[in-house]
Order: sequence, then structure tokens, then C-alpha cells
Amino acid sequence: GNFTVNNELDIESALAKFGDRKLMAEKFVNFTKELAVMVVRSVSGETATYPCVETIQKNHICHTVIAPAPVGESIADKARKLALECVKAIDGVGVFGVELFLDDDSTVLVNEIAPRPHNSGHYTIEACETSQYENCIRAILDLPIGATDMIKPVAVMVNLLGTRDGVGVPKDIVPFMKFNFAKLHLYNKKQCRPGRKMGHITALGDDMQETINYALQAAEAIVW
Amino acid sequence: GNFTVNNELDIESALAKFGDRKLMAEKFVNFTKELAVMVVRSVSGETATYPCVETIQKNHICHTVIAPAPVGESIADKARKLALECVKAIDGVGVFGVELFLDDDSTVLVNEIAPRPHNSGHYTIEACETSQYENCIRAILDLPIGATDMIKPVAVMVNLLGTRDGVGVPKDIVPFMKFNFAKLHLYNKKQCRPGRKMGHITALGDDMQETINYALQAAEAIVW
Repeated sequence: GNFTVNNELDIESALAKFGDRKLMAEKFVNFTKELAVMVVRSVSGETATYPCVETIQKNHICHTVIAPAPVGESIADKARKLALECVKAIDGVGVFGVELFLDDDSTVLVNEIAPRPHNSGHYTIEACETSQYENCIRAILDLPIGATDMIKPVAVMVNLLGTRDGVGVPKDIVPFMKFNFAKLHLYNKKQCRPGRKMGHITALGDDMQETINYALQAAEAIVW
Repeated sequence: GNFTVNNELDIESALAKFGDRKLMAEKFVNFTKELAVMVVRSVSGETATYPCVETIQKNHICHTVIAPAPVGESIADKARKLALECVKAIDGVGVFGVELFLDDDSTVLVNEIAPRPHNSGHYTIEACETSQYENCIRAILDLPIGATDMIKPVAVMVNLLGTRDGVGVPKDIVPFMKFNFAKLHLYNKKQCRPGRKMGHITALGDDMQETINYALQAAEAIVW
């Protein structure tokens, strides 16, 4: 968890939220975008990176992932190289979600590393030659790593965040299924809570803005 | 099963092959290509067709499927329309593999209809927005049919036909996995027999001849 401390008065609320846990204070980064890169590294050290994506958060929870990130090629390259260096530095084996910040002076900074298939890599199921899950298995079994290239120019993943307490499945998905280019993944959690990740949807496309709009509308069509 | 009767002398062998079963004799069609189209039709009559593909047989068994079929647009359209008419004519619900002949005078003829997900539709798992399996479920549950468009320009599926008697799994798939754009499906059958369908592989690509070569080489790399 995290808490944004804007001024001294916020410190008490932050401490109250986390109780007795050990905390780390970090300087606020004036980022313009949040980026992420999935990295694969096998037992014998073969490596690959997936495209650099943009992650958009709502209330500190990942809401939308746009692949590839709408940034210049040099920034995307920088992010992929930096992410790969992080995983090499810790001799990581498997797949890793590396979250990064793009600062307002175009610096790419590492935010955190998740040593597993990651929310920012869910789009790879439909959008890439090999999914993050298949490559995780390949990496830990020391098999050749599958191609990480995208199959279509654009992919957009939207998390389905709970909007109510109650059962974990939607009331109706038929309105969603009319968006017949979008793919639904439900996690079949027993309980839905506001803000909880209940599933996600992915749409592929040729045009970035069209695909973003399509994916957001499709996600909205699910009746909870 | 079937048997090509080229002359009167072949009749005895044909009868011997099939024993007491009822047989149907058909005129030989001088086809230049074998085509196939997967058709989807839901309970309430919504329909969709997948692209027209070419199927290449070896010893009467499907060996390679090329999507889309390398034929003119008008022939592909004719095949899709004809296949759809077939399924409508029998009020079919689900997915149907419609096999067709392209005759030497560019006539499209129906060969046979398989009322189920079909070998000629395996490529849809990786190559299309919605697989034949997902659309089969959508159709019989009367949900909206998913998009049948291809995600990449070309897909090639190669069946893995048994080359020996013995266990149903390969000795080594690592050489195959180095073809890191190809996808492997093993059916985990207990017994391998010469000519038996033991699995298939699929590769996507931008160029037809390159993708055919790549898929055939990948399939050859599996060690049985």
C-alpha cells in the first residue's frame, strides 16, 4: 500500500492507515506518465523484454494499460533496457513486471519490480506472440523464450474494479459480448468489494485512440 | 474413410478396405485446390464465417492449412457464401467446418460438412479475434458471436501426423521451441500410430511463403 503525503498534516493519516508496519518515505516524483515493461529471464540467462506500456492508475490502482506506450522510441528503448538491467542485477529467473516513471524532464526512473506475471502484462495473452504466462513457464524450465512481439499495432487492457460489495460475478455480460472484438477475463473471486480487481478486458486494434475508446466502452458494458 | 478408384481393377481393393459398410460412389472432381470455411450460427440465427482457407492433404489426411487461402477475393467470397448457405439450409447451430473443392474451371463445390470445431479451424486459436471453440460456446448459448477477423495477415497450421508406433508424446520439443514464433498443441493421445493426428502447430506471419516455410520447418523440428 501507499499514501501520498502532500504536507505535514497528512503524516498522521498515513501512519494511521498502515498501523505498526515498517514504512519507507520516498520523494514525490513529478512523473508525466507511468510506464511498465515485462522482462523474461531464463535459468540459463536468455532474456527478452516485452514492449514498454503505459499504465494509468485510478486511486492508486492500475486501471488501464496501453500497449505500446504512446512515447517516443528512445524513451521506450530506455525503459526496456533499464527494466532488463534491473532483472539481470538481481539474477532474476521467470517473468518480472518492472514499473517505471517517466519524469517531466524525460528521465526514466524505476518505481518497483514485481517478480511474477503482472497486471501490466495481462495484455500479452491476446496481444503478443507468447503470453507472459507461457514465457514464465519457459523461463523457469530453461526452455527457449517465446517471441514477445505484438501481433497487432495496439492493445488496451482495462481492469474491472469492483464498484459494490456482493458476489464476485457480474449480473450480465451479454451487453459486453456485443463488443465482439473485446476479450473478457473474470477471476471468479467470491466477493466483490469497491476497488477490488475482479477481472479485466483486452481489445486489440490498429488505431490507438479508437482502441482505447472501444476497450473503455466494452468494460463499461458489463453489468455488476 | 475414402478410396480413390481410378479404374475397374481398383473396385475390389476399395470394397476390401471397407468390408460390409454402406458405400457411396462419387464422380472424381478435378480440383485444383481444397478449400474450407468455418461457419458459426447461433440459436437465434446470428451467423458469421471465418476466412476461406486452403487445406493440403497427404494420403487423404489434412496436413497443412493456409489462412487465408491463396485464391482471388471472388473465389474466397463464393466459398464463404456457399458454406454459410449450407449451414443455414440445415438450420445448423454451433460451428461447422465446410470443406470445398475449387475446380479447374474456378467452380466452388461443397465436399463435406463437419458439424463441430474442425481441423481446418485450429488456426483460429491464435490467428483470429475469436477462436472456433469460443464461438461454438457463444453460438450454442445464444450469446453474440465474436469477431472472426484474422489478427495477422497470414496463419499456417501444420498437423503433427504420427510417424511411428509408440507413446503419444514427442521425445524432445526443445528444437521446436527455438522456433519462437510457432505455437505447439499436443493432444496427449496415449498411442502414436503412423498417420495419426498427434497434435498441430500454428505460426502467424506477414508473408505467406515465409510463414509456410517457417511452420513446416518448426513442425519438422519436433523429435518423435
